[in-house]
Amino acid sequence: MSRKPVVLIAFGGNALIQKGQKGTAEEQLENLRLPMRVVANLSRDYRVVISHGNGPQAGNLLLQQESCREVPAMPLDVVGAMTQGQIGYMIESSLDAALTEAGEDRLFITVLTFTEVDKNDPLFKNPTKPVGPFYTEEEAAQRPYTMVKTDKGHRRVVASPKPVAIAQHREIKQLVEEDYIVICCCGGGIPVVREGRSFRGVEAVIDKDLASSTLAQEIKADLFVIATDVKGAAIHWGKPEQRLLGRVSLEEMKGYVREGHFPAGSMGPKVEALLGFVEGTGNRAVICHLDDIEKAVAGEAGTEISK
Amino acid sequence: MSRKPVVLIAFGGNALIQKGQKGTAEEQLENLRLPMRVVANLSRDYRVVISHGNGPQAGNLLLQQESCREVPAMPLDVVGAMTQGQIGYMIESSLDAALTEAGEDRLFITVLTFTEVDKNDPLFKNPTKPVGPFYTEEEAAQRPYTMVKTDKGHRRVVASPKPVAIAQHREIKQLVEEDYIVICCCGGGIPVVREGRSFRGVEAVIDKDLASSTLAQEIKADLFVIATDVKGAAIHWGKPEQRLLGRVSLEEMKGYVREGHFPAGSMGPKVEALLGFVEGTGNRAVICHLDDIEKAVAGEAGTEISK
Repeated sequence: MSRKPVVLIAFGGNALIQKGQKGTAEEQLENLRLPMRVVANLSRDYRVVISHGNGPQAGNLLLQQESCREVPAMPLDVVGAMTQGQIGYMIESSLDAALTEAGEDRLFITVLTFTEVDKNDPLFKNPTKPVGPFYTEEEAAQRPYTMVKTDKGHRRVVASPKPVAIAQHREIKQLVEEDYIVICCCGGGIPVVREGRSFRGVEAVIDKDLASSTLAQEIKADLFVIATDVKGAAIHWGKPEQRLLGRVSLEEMKGYVREGHFPAGSMGPKVEALLGFVEGTGNRAVICHLDDIEKAVAGEAGTEISK
Repeated sequence: MSRKPVVLIAFGGNALIQKGQKGTAEEQLENLRLPMRVVANLSRDYRVVISHGNGPQAGNLLLQQESCREVPAMPLDVVGAMTQGQIGYMIESSLDAALTEAGEDRLFITVLTFTEVDKNDPLFKNPTKPVGPFYTEEEAAQRPYTMVKTDKGHRRVVASPKPVAIAQHREIKQLVEEDYIVICCCGGGIPVVREGRSFRGVEAVIDKDLASSTLAQEIKADLFVIATDVKGAAIHWGKPEQRLLGRVSLEEMKGYVREGHFPAGSMGPKVEALLGFVEGTGNRAVICHLDDIEKAVAGEAGTEISK
C-alpha cells in the first residue's frame, strides 16, 4: 500500500476542448498533453485521481442522436457512460505518452462511475440544467422533454440533483491505495437512484465539481484541486474592487458565500465543492487555472481553502 | 487473494441485441437480464471475467456520425472506447440487479481495454472487415476510406489485425485476483500499436473472440467460454451429415480445422480462439449457446476442447 498523499484533480472542460474549438479527437488529445505531463510529474510524489467534465462531448452525442432517427437514441445515463469511455480513453492515451516521456512506469485505469442521487431530491422537481441541441418551437413541442425558451431557441432542461455518494468509491479507494492513477467520475458520474440494494439510471446531470468533492471525501484525499479557466475565486467579481482570493480560511470563505460573491451558475458550485471537502476532511482544497496545477499543489497559486 | 477458478466468458452480440431488434437501451438491458443472472450465480464458485462484442453499437455510432456533419466525427479507436463505456454501463447495471437478486455482495468493474496489434501485421495491407453505413457510389467516392462494393451499396472496410497482447492484462489479472467481476475487452479492445514504450490508437477492428483468448491466456484463466447463438461447433456444416461436436481433443479439433470445416467469416476465428487458449494454457475451452453457459461450465453443453 502506497503512503504517498492522495490528490484528486477535477479537470474543467478546457482541459479537453478550448474556446472556439469544435472538439475533434486531435484537438482533445493535443489539449490533454500538458495537463497529463503535470499528472505524470505529480505521480512521483502523489497518488493522483483524475475527474473531468463531459459537457461538450455529451452535447455532441445528443446532437448526433437528434440528426439520425434510424438509430435508437440512448437515454442520458447511457450517453454519460459513452462519454466516460471516450474521455477516459483520450486521457489514458495522453497519460500513457506523458508517463513514458517522464520515465515513470505506473498503472492507470479508468473506472466507469455511477453517482447516487436521492430520488426525493427537491431539485428533481425543478429541472434547470440545459442539455443537447436547440429546437424551434415546433420541434420543441414534439419532444417529451421539459423545455426552456432561450435567445437561440428552445432547449431541453434536466434536473441536476446533489450527489449523495459515488457508487464505486470502495473500488476507487482500493485502486488508489495500490498506487493506480485512477480516472473516474467523468461528467459528475452517471446519475443513479437506489432502489432497495440496486441502482437505476436516471435522466439527470450531476455537477462534476460536487461529485468530485463527494468522492474526494469518501476516499479521504489529502488535497482536492479544481483546475479551471480562471486563476481562482474572486470576490466582487466584475466590479472595480474585484480581488482574487489567495489563502483563505474555511470560515472566511463561508462568509463570502453568505455575502453572495459566487454566482450559482459558475463559481458557486465550485466553491461549494471546495468547502464541502475542507469541512468533511479537514484537508486543504484549491481552485486554480489549468496551467497552474503544480504551483497550486505546492501552495503557490490559486485560491486555497483550509481549516 | 481468491482461490476460486477463473472463467472468462466472451459474450456474442446476441447477449445485447437480438435478431430483428434495433438496439434500444431498454432492449439491451432486457436482453442482458438472463446472462447476468448466470454470471451472478457463477460468481459464487468462480471468479468471472466478461468480454463482449460491440459491432451493432459501433455501427450505430458511425451512422450517427455520418448523419451529423456539425459535430466532428471520432475515429474508430475513440468510437470503440465509447462503446466500451456504453456496454460496460449496461452490463454493470444488469449485473448489479442480478447480484442483488442473488444475494451476492461482490465488487465489479469495467476496465477500458486497449489491444496491442503489430503495426507490421500483413493484415493491415488487406482490409476486409466492413464497418459503418452503406454509401452510394458518389458518397463512397467522397470519403477517404477503403471501400468495397456490396449488394446493398458501398461500404468501408478496415483491417482486422491479430491481437498481440492486452495492454491492461496486469491490471485485469490483479482485479481478478481480488475477486472483482471484471468487464473488459469490449469489441476486442481498442486497437493500438506500440511506439517505443507508449501506444497509439489505430483505425482497425479486432476480433472479439481472438482478443478474449489472448486475455484468457495472459491471466491464466481456468476456463474460456465463448457464448454465442449456436449450440457449438459442427463439422460438415449445412450438409446432411452435419454433426455438432461435443467433447473433442485439441488434436482432433486441429484436424477438423485442417479439413476446412470452419468458415473464415464465422466459426473459424472462434475455433482459432478456443484452440489458442487450450494450447497456451492446457486448460479447457468451450463454445456454447448463450442459454447454456452454466451447463457448459459444468461440462454438460457446447463443444468443449481439452488437451
